[in-house]
Amino acid sequence: MAGDLALLAAVSLLSVLQQSRFAQLVGKSRMKHKVMPPAVTGAPEFERTFRAQQNCAEFYPMFQTVLWIAGWFCNQELAALLGLLYMFARHKYFHGYAQAASERLTGFYLSLVVLACLTILGAAGIVNSFMDEYLGFNVGKKLHKLF
Amino acid sequence: MAGDLALLAAVSLLSVLQQSRFAQLVGKSRMKHKVMPPAVTGAPEFERTFRAQQNCAEFYPMFQTVLWIAGWFCNQELAALLGLLYMFARHKYFHGYAQAASERLTGFYLSLVVLACLTILGAAGIVNSFMDEYLGFNVGKKLHKLF
Amino acid sequence: MAGDLALLAAVSLLSVLQQSRFAQLVGKSRMKHKVMPPAVTGAPEFERTFRAQQNCAEFYPMFQTVLWIAGWFCNQELAALLGLLYMFARHKYFHGYAQAASERLTGFYLSLVVLACLTILGAAGIVNSFMDEYLGFNVGKKLHKLF
Repeated sequence: MAGDLALLAAVSLLSVLQQSRFAQLVGKSRMKHKVMPPAVTGAPEFERTFRAQQNCAEFYPMFQTVLWIAGWFCNQELAALLGLLYMFARHKYFHGYAQAASERLTGFYLSLVVLACLTILGAAGIVNSFMDEYLGFNVGKKLHKLF
Repeated sequence: MAGDLALLAAVSLLSVLQQSRFAQLVGKSRMKHKVMPPAVTGAPEFERTFRAQQNCAEFYPMFQTVLWIAGWFCNQELAALLGLLYMFARHKYFHGYAQAASERLTGFYLSLVVLACLTILGAAGIVNSFMDEYLGFNVGKKLHKLF
Repeated sequence: MAGDLALLAAVSLLSVLQQSRFAQLVGKSRMKHKVMPPAVTGAPEFERTFRAQQNCAEFYPMFQTVLWIAGWFCNQELAALLGLLYMFARHKYFHGYAQAASERLTGFYLSLVVLACLTILGAAGIVNSFMDEYLGFNVGKKLHKLF
Protein backbone atom coordinates (compact mmCIF):
# COMPACT_ATOMS: atom_id res chain seq x y z
CA MET A 1 0.00 0.00 0.00
CA ALA A 2 2.91 2.35 0.73
CA GLY A 3 3.66 2.61 -2.98
CA ASP A 4 0.17 3.97 -3.69
CA LEU A 5 0.85 7.01 -1.54
CA ALA A 6 4.42 7.74 -2.67
CA LEU A 7 3.46 11.09 -4.23
CA LEU A 8 1.88 12.26 -0.98
CA ALA A 9 4.90 11.08 0.99
CA ALA A 10 7.20 12.96 -1.39
CA VAL A 11 5.35 16.26 -0.84
CA SER A 12 5.20 15.57 2.90
CA LEU A 13 8.96 15.02 3.01
CA LEU A 14 9.63 18.18 0.98
CA SER A 15 7.53 20.17 3.44
CA VAL A 16 9.69 18.83 6.30
CA LEU A 17 12.74 20.21 4.49
CA GLN A 18 11.00 23.58 4.16
CA GLN A 19 10.13 23.63 7.87
CA SER A 20 13.72 22.85 8.85
CA ARG A 21 14.93 25.56 6.45
CA PHE A 22 12.71 28.08 8.27
CA ALA A 23 14.12 26.95 11.63
CA GLN A 24 17.65 27.32 10.23
CA LEU A 25 16.90 30.87 9.03
CA VAL A 26 15.73 31.81 12.53
CA GLY A 27 19.06 30.51 13.82
CA LYS A 28 20.93 32.64 11.28
CA SER A 29 18.86 35.69 12.23
CA ARG A 30 19.75 35.04 15.89
CA MET A 31 23.46 35.14 15.03
CA LYS A 32 23.11 38.23 12.80
CA HIS A 33 21.23 40.23 15.41
CA LYS A 34 23.06 38.71 18.38
CA VAL A 35 19.89 37.44 20.10
CA MET A 36 21.27 34.79 22.42
CA PRO A 37 19.10 31.79 23.41
CA PRO A 38 16.80 31.54 25.29
CA ALA A 39 15.89 35.18 24.42
CA VAL A 40 13.28 35.57 21.68
CA THR A 41 13.10 39.35 21.65
CA GLY A 42 15.52 41.86 20.16
CA ALA A 43 15.94 43.40 16.72
CA PRO A 44 12.55 43.82 14.95
CA GLU A 45 13.81 41.82 11.95
CA PHE A 46 14.66 38.89 14.22
CA GLU A 47 11.29 39.09 15.96
CA ARG A 48 9.46 39.03 12.63
CA THR A 49 11.51 36.08 11.37
CA PHE A 50 10.90 34.24 14.63
CA ARG A 51 7.13 34.87 14.57
CA ALA A 52 6.97 33.82 10.92
CA GLN A 53 8.59 30.48 11.75
CA GLN A 54 6.41 30.03 14.83
CA ASN A 55 3.27 30.55 12.78
CA CYS A 56 4.47 28.08 10.13
CA ALA A 57 5.22 25.54 12.84
CA GLU A 58 1.77 26.01 14.45
CA PHE A 59 -0.04 25.41 11.18
CA TYR A 60 2.23 22.55 10.12
CA PRO A 61 0.40 19.65 11.85
CA MET A 62 -2.91 20.95 10.46
CA PHE A 63 -1.41 21.04 6.98
CA GLN A 64 -0.04 17.51 7.26
CA THR A 65 -3.39 16.20 8.52
CA VAL A 66 -5.51 17.68 5.73
CA LEU A 67 -2.87 16.83 3.09
CA TRP A 68 -2.92 13.12 3.97
CA ILE A 69 -6.67 12.89 4.49
CA ALA A 70 -7.40 14.67 1.19
CA GLY A 71 -4.87 12.55 -0.69
CA TRP A 72 -5.87 9.28 0.88
CA PHE A 73 -9.65 9.63 0.90
CA CYS A 74 -10.14 11.70 -2.21
CA ASN A 75 -7.43 12.33 -4.82
CA GLN A 76 -3.72 11.92 -4.30
CA GLU A 77 -2.52 13.93 -7.31
CA LEU A 78 -4.74 16.92 -6.52
CA ALA A 79 -3.77 16.84 -2.84
CA ALA A 80 -0.06 16.66 -3.74
CA LEU A 81 -0.46 19.65 -6.07
CA LEU A 82 -2.24 21.64 -3.36
CA GLY A 83 0.52 20.60 -0.97
CA LEU A 84 3.12 22.16 -3.25
CA LEU A 85 0.97 25.30 -3.52
CA TYR A 86 0.81 25.46 0.28
CA MET A 87 4.60 25.30 0.43
CA PHE A 88 4.81 28.15 -2.08
CA ALA A 89 2.35 30.19 0.01
CA ARG A 90 4.39 29.57 3.17
CA HIS A 91 7.58 30.52 1.31
CA LYS A 92 6.02 33.87 0.34
CA TYR A 93 4.64 34.32 3.86
CA PHE A 94 7.92 33.60 5.63
CA HIS A 95 10.17 35.73 3.45
CA GLY A 96 7.57 38.51 3.23
CA TYR A 97 7.15 38.61 7.02
CA ALA A 98 10.93 38.67 7.53
CA GLN A 99 11.04 41.91 5.47
CA ALA A 100 7.97 43.68 6.86
CA ALA A 101 4.91 42.67 8.90
CA SER A 102 2.56 43.88 6.13
CA GLU A 103 4.31 41.69 3.55
CA ARG A 104 3.12 38.54 5.32
CA LEU A 105 -0.51 38.83 4.31
CA THR A 106 -0.55 37.63 0.66
CA GLY A 107 1.24 34.38 1.50
CA PHE A 108 -0.82 33.88 4.63
CA TYR A 109 -4.19 34.26 2.91
CA LEU A 110 -3.07 32.00 0.06
CA SER A 111 -2.04 29.34 2.59
CA LEU A 112 -5.49 29.56 4.22
CA VAL A 113 -7.22 29.13 0.84
CA VAL A 114 -5.11 26.02 0.15
CA LEU A 115 -5.88 24.60 3.61
CA ALA A 116 -9.59 25.19 2.98
CA CYS A 117 -9.38 23.38 -0.40
CA LEU A 118 -7.58 20.41 1.18
CA THR A 119 -10.16 20.31 3.98
CA ILE A 120 -13.04 20.30 1.46
CA LEU A 121 -11.35 17.53 -0.58
CA GLY A 122 -10.80 15.50 2.59
CA ALA A 123 -14.38 16.01 3.78
CA ALA A 124 -15.73 15.00 0.36
CA GLY A 125 -13.61 11.84 0.46
CA ILE A 126 -14.79 10.94 3.95
CA VAL A 127 -18.46 11.53 3.10
CA ASN A 128 -17.98 9.35 0.01
CA SER A 129 -16.42 6.62 2.21
CA PHE A 130 -19.38 6.70 4.59
CA MET A 131 -21.92 6.61 1.74
CA ASP A 132 -20.06 3.72 0.16
CA GLU A 133 -20.04 1.77 3.41
CA TYR A 134 -23.56 2.44 4.64
CA LEU A 135 -25.52 3.07 1.43
CA GLY A 136 -23.41 1.15 -1.09
CA PHE A 137 -23.21 4.31 -3.17
CA ASN A 138 -19.73 5.45 -4.22
CA VAL A 139 -19.74 8.85 -5.97
CA GLY A 140 -15.99 8.70 -6.55
CA LYS A 141 -16.22 5.52 -8.61
CA LYS A 142 -19.20 6.84 -10.59
CA LEU A 143 -17.24 10.01 -11.45
CA HIS A 144 -14.25 7.91 -12.49
CA LYS A 145 -16.48 5.98 -14.89
CA LEU A 146 -17.85 9.18 -16.42
CA PHE A 147 -14.42 10.57 -17.34
CA MET B 1 -8.21 0.48 3.58
CA ALA B 2 -8.96 4.22 3.72
CA GLY B 3 -12.67 3.48 4.13
CA ASP B 4 -12.03 1.47 7.29
CA LEU B 5 -10.63 4.53 9.02
CA ALA B 6 -13.16 7.11 7.82
CA LEU B 7 -14.48 7.74 11.32
CA LEU B 8 -11.00 8.51 12.61
CA ALA B 9 -10.33 10.77 9.63
CA ALA B 10 -13.60 12.62 10.27
CA VAL B 11 -12.65 13.38 13.88
CA SER B 12 -9.13 14.29 12.79
CA LEU B 13 -10.51 16.76 10.22
CA LEU B 14 -12.91 18.27 12.76
CA SER B 15 -10.00 18.84 15.13
CA VAL B 16 -8.16 20.73 12.36
CA LEU B 17 -11.17 23.04 12.08
CA GLN B 18 -11.06 23.59 15.84
CA GLN B 19 -7.34 24.41 15.75
CA SER B 20 -7.84 26.94 12.94
CA ARG B 21 -10.75 28.45 14.86
CA PHE B 22 -8.43 28.97 17.86
CA ALA B 23 -5.85 30.64 15.58
CA GLN B 24 -8.58 32.88 14.16
CA LEU B 25 -9.70 33.91 17.65
CA VAL B 26 -6.12 34.95 18.48
CA GLY B 27 -6.17 37.10 15.34
CA LYS B 28 -9.44 38.72 16.45
CA SER B 29 -8.02 39.32 19.93
CA ARG B 30 -5.00 41.00 18.28
CA MET B 31 -7.30 43.41 16.45
CA LYS B 32 -9.47 44.07 19.51
CA HIS B 33 -6.51 44.87 21.76
CA LYS B 34 -4.40 46.45 19.00
CA VAL B 35 -1.44 44.08 19.46
CA MET B 36 0.35 44.43 16.15
CA PRO B 37 2.41 41.52 14.76
CA PRO B 38 5.06 40.41 15.51
CA ALA B 39 4.31 41.51 19.12
CA VAL B 40 2.87 38.82 21.36
CA THR B 41 2.56 40.86 24.55
CA GLY B 42 0.00 43.49 25.48
CA ALA B 43 -3.44 43.37 27.07
CA PRO B 44 -3.71 40.49 29.59
CA GLU B 45 -6.78 39.13 27.77
CA PHE B 46 -4.81 38.90 24.53
CA GLU B 47 -1.87 37.23 26.28
CA ARG B 48 -4.14 34.60 27.81
CA THR B 49 -5.86 33.91 24.49
CA PHE B 50 -2.48 33.65 22.78
CA ARG B 51 -1.06 31.27 25.40
CA ALA B 52 -4.21 29.15 25.26
CA GLN B 53 -3.82 28.72 21.50
CA GLN B 54 -0.08 28.05 21.84
CA ASN B 55 -0.71 25.30 24.36
CA CYS B 56 -3.39 23.72 22.15
CA ALA B 57 -0.99 23.84 19.18
CA GLU B 58 1.83 22.23 21.23
CA PHE B 59 -0.36 19.32 22.30
CA TYR B 60 -1.99 18.92 18.90
CA PRO B 61 0.58 16.58 17.27
CA MET B 62 0.56 14.41 20.41
CA PHE B 63 -3.22 14.22 20.24
CA GLN B 64 -3.20 13.29 16.54
CA THR B 65 -0.59 10.61 17.14
CA VAL B 66 -2.39 8.86 19.98
CA LEU B 67 -5.78 9.26 18.28
CA TRP B 68 -4.62 7.44 15.14
CA ILE B 69 -2.60 4.77 16.95
CA ALA B 70 -5.47 4.02 19.36
CA GLY B 71 -8.00 3.92 16.53
CA TRP B 72 -5.86 1.91 14.17
CA PHE B 73 -4.35 -0.61 16.57
CA CYS B 74 -7.18 -0.96 19.05
CA ASN B 75 -10.71 0.35 18.49
CA GLN B 76 -11.72 3.02 15.99
CA GLU B 77 -15.12 3.89 17.48
CA LEU B 78 -13.77 4.30 21.00
CA ALA B 79 -10.80 6.37 19.77
CA ALA B 80 -13.12 8.60 17.72
CA LEU B 81 -15.33 9.15 20.76
CA LEU B 82 -12.34 10.02 22.92
CA GLY B 83 -11.19 12.35 20.12
CA LEU B 84 -14.47 14.26 20.34
CA LEU B 85 -14.12 14.40 24.12
CA TYR B 86 -10.61 15.83 23.70
CA MET B 87 -12.01 18.54 21.43
CA PHE B 88 -14.63 19.36 24.05
CA ALA B 89 -11.92 19.56 26.74
CA ARG B 90 -9.82 21.87 24.56
CA HIS B 91 -12.88 24.03 23.87
CA LYS B 92 -13.43 24.45 27.61
CA TYR B 93 -9.71 25.07 28.16
CA PHE B 94 -9.38 27.70 25.45
CA HIS B 95 -12.47 29.72 26.29
CA GLY B 96 -11.87 29.35 30.02
CA TYR B 97 -8.26 30.55 29.73
CA ALA B 98 -9.33 33.52 27.57
CA GLN B 99 -11.53 34.66 30.48
CA ALA B 100 -9.20 34.00 33.41
CA ALA B 101 -6.02 31.98 33.95
CA SER B 102 -7.67 29.93 36.71
CA GLU B 103 -10.54 28.95 34.39
CA ARG B 104 -8.17 26.95 32.19
CA LEU B 105 -7.64 24.10 34.63
CA THR B 106 -10.83 21.98 34.28
CA GLY B 107 -10.50 21.73 30.51
CA PHE B 108 -6.77 21.14 30.72
CA TYR B 109 -6.98 18.27 33.21
CA LEU B 110 -9.83 16.69 31.23
CA SER B 111 -7.72 16.88 28.06
CA LEU B 112 -4.86 15.13 29.89
CA VAL B 113 -7.16 12.34 31.07
CA VAL B 114 -8.39 11.81 27.49
CA LEU B 115 -4.81 11.76 26.18
CA ALA B 116 -3.93 9.17 28.84
CA CYS B 117 -6.90 7.00 27.82
CA LEU B 118 -5.94 7.19 24.13
CA THR B 119 -2.34 6.33 25.03
CA ILE B 120 -3.43 3.28 27.04
CA LEU B 121 -5.74 2.13 24.19
CA GLY B 122 -2.90 2.55 21.70
CA ALA B 123 -0.40 0.73 23.92
CA ALA B 124 -2.87 -2.14 24.40
CA GLY B 125 -3.35 -2.39 20.65
CA ILE B 126 0.39 -2.43 19.99
CA VAL B 127 1.04 -5.08 22.65
CA ASN B 128 -1.77 -7.15 21.11
CA SER B 129 -0.16 -6.75 17.66
CA PHE B 130 3.21 -7.94 18.98
CA MET B 131 1.64 -10.92 20.80
CA ASP B 132 -0.29 -11.83 17.66
CA GLU B 133 2.84 -11.70 15.52
CA TYR B 134 5.33 -13.40 17.83
CA LEU B 135 3.15 -15.68 19.96
CA GLY B 136 0.18 -16.20 17.63
CA PHE B 137 -2.08 -15.04 20.44
CA ASN B 138 -4.57 -12.26 19.62
CA VAL B 139 -6.46 -10.98 22.68
CA GLY B 140 -8.48 -8.56 20.55
CA LYS B 141 -9.97 -11.35 18.42
CA LYS B 142 -10.69 -13.49 21.50
CA LEU B 143 -12.53 -10.57 23.12
CA HIS B 144 -14.53 -10.01 19.93
CA LYS B 145 -15.60 -13.64 20.01
CA LEU B 146 -16.74 -13.37 23.63
CA PHE B 147 -19.11 -10.44 23.01
CA MET C 1 -1.68 -3.83 7.87
CA ALA C 2 -1.60 -2.18 11.30
CA GLY C 3 0.35 -5.12 12.70
CA ASP C 4 3.15 -4.61 10.18
CA LEU C 5 3.88 -1.19 11.60
CA ALA C 6 3.57 -1.99 15.31
CA LEU C 7 7.25 -1.25 15.97
CA LEU C 8 6.93 2.22 14.45
CA ALA C 9 3.75 2.86 16.40
CA ALA C 10 5.49 1.80 19.63
CA VAL C 11 8.33 4.30 19.11
CA SER C 12 5.82 6.96 18.09
CA LEU C 13 3.83 6.40 21.27
CA LEU C 14 6.97 6.51 23.42
CA SER C 15 7.88 9.85 21.86
CA VAL C 16 4.44 11.20 22.83
CA LEU C 17 5.21 10.25 26.43
CA GLN C 18 8.54 12.08 26.19
CA GLN C 19 6.87 15.21 24.80
CA SER C 20 4.29 15.22 27.59
CA ARG C 21 7.08 14.72 30.13
CA PHE C 22 8.81 17.85 28.77
CA ALA C 23 5.54 19.82 29.05
CA GLN C 24 5.15 18.58 32.63
CA LEU C 25 8.69 19.69 33.51
CA VAL C 26 7.90 23.20 32.21
CA GLY C 27 4.88 23.22 34.52
CA LYS C 28 7.08 22.19 37.46
CA SER C 29 9.60 24.90 36.58
CA ARG C 30 6.72 27.43 36.53
CA MET C 31 5.77 26.44 40.07
CA LYS C 32 9.37 26.43 41.31
CA HIS C 33 10.15 29.88 39.92
CA LYS C 34 6.64 31.26 40.49
CA VAL C 35 6.05 32.21 36.84
CA MET C 36 2.28 32.43 36.69
CA PRO C 37 0.43 31.71 33.41
CA PRO C 38 0.14 33.30 30.91
CA ALA C 39 3.62 34.77 31.61
CA VAL C 40 6.51 33.02 29.86
CA THR C 41 9.34 35.19 31.16
CA GLY C 42 10.99 35.19 34.55
CA ALA C 43 13.86 33.26 36.10
CA PRO C 44 16.52 32.37 33.49
CA GLU C 45 16.23 28.67 34.39
CA PHE C 46 12.51 28.74 33.67
CA GLU C 47 13.06 30.56 30.37
CA ARG C 48 15.62 27.99 29.25
CA THR C 49 13.35 25.08 30.21
CA PHE C 50 10.45 26.73 28.39
CA ARG C 51 12.46 27.39 25.22
CA ALA C 52 13.81 23.83 25.28
CA GLN C 53 10.28 22.44 25.35
CA GLN C 54 9.12 24.89 22.67
CA ASN C 55 11.92 23.80 20.36
CA CYS C 56 11.14 20.12 20.95
CA ALA C 57 7.46 20.79 20.20
CA GLU C 58 8.30 22.67 16.97
CA PHE C 59 10.44 19.83 15.66
CA TYR C 60 8.04 17.13 16.82
CA PRO C 61 5.72 17.02 13.76
CA MET C 62 8.79 16.95 11.48
CA PHE C 63 10.18 14.03 13.47
CA GLN C 64 6.90 12.10 13.32
CA THR C 65 6.63 12.68 9.57
CA VAL C 66 10.11 11.44 8.68
CA LEU C 67 9.90 8.58 11.19
CA TRP C 68 6.75 7.15 9.59
CA ILE C 69 7.81 7.79 5.99
CA ALA C 70 11.24 6.21 6.56
CA GLY C 71 9.72 3.24 8.37
CA TRP C 72 6.88 2.71 5.94
CA PHE C 73 8.67 3.28 2.65
CA CYS C 74 12.11 1.98 3.55
CA ASN C 75 12.92 -0.02 6.66
CA GLN C 76 10.81 -0.17 9.80
CA GLU C 77 13.46 -1.58 12.15
CA LEU C 78 16.07 1.00 11.15
CA ALA C 79 13.56 3.84 11.39
CA ALA C 80 12.44 2.68 14.83
CA LEU C 81 16.07 2.54 16.01
CA LEU C 82 16.71 6.04 14.69
CA GLY C 83 13.52 7.15 16.40
CA LEU C 84 14.86 5.94 19.75
CA LEU C 85 18.14 7.74 19.03
CA TYR C 86 16.21 10.94 18.30
CA MET C 87 14.46 10.61 21.67
CA PHE C 88 17.84 10.20 23.35
CA ALA C 89 19.16 13.31 21.55
CA ARG C 90 16.11 15.32 22.62
CA HIS C 91 16.53 14.07 26.19
CA LYS C 92 20.13 15.34 26.22
CA TYR C 93 19.05 18.60 24.55
CA PHE C 94 16.21 19.33 26.96
CA HIS C 95 18.06 18.56 30.17
CA GLY C 96 21.24 20.23 28.92
CA TYR C 97 19.39 23.41 27.95
CA ALA C 98 17.60 23.52 31.30
CA GLN C 99 21.04 23.69 32.97
CA ALA C 100 22.82 26.12 30.63
CA ALA C 101 22.19 27.47 27.12
CA SER C 102 25.55 26.14 25.92
CA GLU C 103 24.70 22.62 27.12
CA ARG C 104 21.90 22.35 24.54
CA LEU C 105 24.18 22.02 21.51
CA THR C 106 25.35 18.36 21.64
CA GLY C 107 21.81 17.02 21.89
CA PHE C 108 20.54 19.46 19.29
CA TYR C 109 23.15 18.59 16.67
CA LEU C 110 22.65 14.87 17.30
CA SER C 111 18.88 15.31 16.80
CA LEU C 112 19.54 17.06 13.48
CA VAL C 113 21.81 14.23 12.31
CA VAL C 114 19.10 11.68 13.17
CA LEU C 115 16.45 13.74 11.34
CA ALA C 116 18.74 13.90 8.29
CA CYS C 117 19.24 10.10 8.37
CA LEU C 118 15.47 9.51 8.61
CA THR C 119 14.88 11.96 5.73
CA ILE C 120 17.44 10.17 3.55
CA LEU C 121 15.90 6.77 4.38
CA GLY C 122 12.44 8.12 3.56
CA ALA C 123 13.61 9.72 0.28
CA ALA C 124 15.32 6.47 -0.74
CA GLY C 125 12.13 4.53 -0.02
CA ILE C 126 10.00 6.96 -2.03
CA VAL C 127 12.39 6.92 -5.01
CA ASN C 128 12.32 3.12 -4.87
CA SER C 129 8.50 3.20 -4.85
CA PHE C 130 8.43 5.44 -7.92
CA MET C 131 10.98 3.30 -9.78
CA ASP C 132 9.01 0.18 -8.91
CA GLU C 133 5.77 1.72 -10.18
CA TYR C 134 7.00 3.40 -13.34
CA LEU C 135 10.03 1.33 -14.32
CA GLY C 136 9.18 -2.00 -12.73
CA PHE C 137 12.55 -1.90 -10.97
CA ASN C 138 12.57 -2.42 -7.20
CA VAL C 139 15.99 -1.90 -5.61
CA GLY C 140 14.68 -2.78 -2.17
CA LYS C 141 13.60 -6.27 -3.22
CA LYS C 142 16.88 -6.86 -5.08
CA LEU C 143 18.84 -5.90 -1.96
CA HIS C 144 16.69 -8.22 0.15
CA LYS C 145 17.54 -11.08 -2.21
CA LEU C 146 21.26 -10.37 -1.97
CA PHE C 147 21.40 -10.64 1.82
